[in-house]
Amino acid sequence: MRAPIQKTRTMAQTVRISLDAMGGDRGAEVVVPGAALALERRPDISFSIYGNSDIVAPLLQAHPRLREASTLHHCEVSVAMDAKPSQALRQGRWKSSMWRSIEAVKTGHADVAVSAGNTGALMAMSKFCLRTMANIERPAIAAIWPTMRGESIVLDVGATIGADAQQLIDFALLGGAMARILFSIERPTVGLLNIGVEEVKGLEEVRTAGRLLREANLRSLTYAGFVEGDDLGKGVVDVVVTEGFAGNIALKTAEGTARQIGSYLRSAMNRTWRAKLGYLLAKDAFDRLREKMDPRKVNGGVFLGLNGIVIKSHGGTDAEGFAAAVELAYDMARNDLMNKISQDLKSYHRGRFEPRDGSEGDK
Amino acid sequence: MRAPIQKTRTMAQTVRISLDAMGGDRGAEVVVPGAALALERRPDISFSIYGNSDIVAPLLQAHPRLREASTLHHCEVSVAMDAKPSQALRQGRWKSSMWRSIEAVKTGHADVAVSAGNTGALMAMSKFCLRTMANIERPAIAAIWPTMRGESIVLDVGATIGADAQQLIDFALLGGAMARILFSIERPTVGLLNIGVEEVKGLEEVRTAGRLLREANLRSLTYAGFVEGDDLGKGVVDVVVTEGFAGNIALKTAEGTARQIGSYLRSAMNRTWRAKLGYLLAKDAFDRLREKMDPRKVNGGVFLGLNGIVIKSHGGTDAEGFAAAVELAYDMARNDLMNKISQDLKSYHRGRFEPRDGSEGDK
Repeated sequence: MRAPIQKTRTMAQTVRISLDAMGGDRGAEVVVPGAALALERRPDISFSIYGNSDIVAPLLQAHPRLREASTLHHCEVSVAMDAKPSQALRQGRWKSSMWRSIEAVKTGHADVAVSAGNTGALMAMSKFCLRTMANIERPAIAAIWPTMRGESIVLDVGATIGADAQQLIDFALLGGAMARILFSIERPTVGLLNIGVEEVKGLEEVRTAGRLLREANLRSLTYAGFVEGDDLGKGVVDVVVTEGFAGNIALKTAEGTARQIGSYLRSAMNRTWRAKLGYLLAKDAFDRLREKMDPRKVNGGVFLGLNGIVIKSHGGTDAEGFAAAVELAYDMARNDLMNKISQDLKSYHRGRFEPRDGSEGDK
Repeated sequence: MRAPIQKTRTMAQTVRISLDAMGGDRGAEVVVPGAALALERRPDISFSIYGNSDIVAPLLQAHPRLREASTLHHCEVSVAMDAKPSQALRQGRWKSSMWRSIEAVKTGHADVAVSAGNTGALMAMSKFCLRTMANIERPAIAAIWPTMRGESIVLDVGATIGADAQQLIDFALLGGAMARILFSIERPTVGLLNIGVEEVKGLEEVRTAGRLLREANLRSLTYAGFVEGDDLGKGVVDVVVTEGFAGNIALKTAEGTARQIGSYLRSAMNRTWRAKLGYLLAKDAFDRLREKMDPRKVNGGVFLGLNGIVIKSHGGTDAEGFAAAVELAYDMARNDLMNKISQDLKSYHRGRFEPRDGSEGDK
């Protein structure tokens, strides 16, 4: 195990973010202006930008402040958006912009990496380069989920399929640490995603995880029991834990449903002159709704459970969306996510051998 | 194995529907007027109504046509909405309104049963009473999913957790037969729900099911490959097949997201006078949208894979929603769903021993 990267970071004046400039559907064209936008709002960032300098350097010309805050590292290779993870590893290990942006976190040259590259490749490289933390078997991807009450964290949304009880508990600890930062709360509530139908087979892992979480009686989180799919949008808990198959399907189903309703709404508002006029009058309200549902605002999946933080930006996002991912990366690094996770893991594993007094127990 | 119930049914002039009058949050108060509504639109139904006659008989007074088309069977016991399946079986077997409405299908006195009772109890009783069909290991609950193109069938949405490749193929055959009726098409398209992240563990069953469906080259359906969560709302296929845990979470997540956006929209339209005025002008459009998203219109989960059809109505629905479930039951029975399933299963299992000419293959 290597020394925690946070030690290095807290010495530095700035949060050091490494960027894969070639990731995403439009690559550096989005990454560079996105980073520039984030820098306007978070001026204490220094960037290590990895990419083809023939492409990136000219784009940096338009953003003098960003250019000043950045070091550009030329990389010949970039990982294609449709590359399979194994292919990406074969062709892009050691030398691609994606790999090198992750490696900068490993070597302690960056506090956090951001890429809009393809998820499978980014996860494969992150696992290979950073390895999972001690006591963590599998990484998870944490998504920020807009809810009626604000936001929740949902994990895993697709890093791995299936999870046993211990892995679900790991996800609870990882997501809990992230929630403490993202929502500035000391003891976030955590729920396990489950289905309402009773006495069906296969729930053993979820049930066991629930029992163990209750018994563990953690200082770092409040276990709030099971939640169902329709609780996600209600925001009944700060963190929702599930295995990656169901989590990914839930995430994409919610995105698809939002688009579907958006499309219904547009066609309804276009059908008659009265509706069109009404739409114009209520345009501010519609704009507000659109902003509330704007996927760019919550852009950024956080890879958790590895020896370093990697943020995955949506591949199809624009500069505003990429900036949101960079700002998320900033917040996680500035608030020592890695240290918080280590502490929470330590306290959980200590607790397994020295049971704590149950008197301040979770419900 | 007993003789197919369709034989009996086609002799009859009417579609014979058995109703659990005591199921649902409001029981007979919704079931009776709901059945009356359905009868107005499908006059060739005869009902066997199971419930407490002290409650049901007075309600029937208000609906003379329904009363004429119905036989009321008094049941002392009704299954509580919060009863666990085992409890419901223990207390309600042989004698509850729920059990007896299912039993009417088993004994051939009804073509299909409808209940708004609790899902777990209804499935447990249906399995116990009707048993799974030959060659089918597990039943599935099929939901009708509103899409941008119309509707799709999604199964399993919660009958059982997990499914191996053969069970996923069974679900494809069951859902395919239902789609042939519901959408009046000869050869529905069927997709397997999957996640986009490549080379992750645990997809073996889904991959194997896909390969086998492709190779089986069925006359009764076109296998269209994998679909993801965001394809559900697009309606890219007629039938989406998945195991019950992910399916249930997808269904509830979509419902929750729709409610969430509805709540955003309402609060946005209430914020300013301009928005309120706009809302009034565009009210027809909003009403159309609301109608489009009205869960009552697609009310009814179909239990498939048992020796008889049971329709689960939403417990919280009103008379209009219960009528939709009854009409769905009518359509399934009128169009011989059980026979269609039997034929499709036979042709699939025959095909496994006598491989067909691959020349007219699926893509």
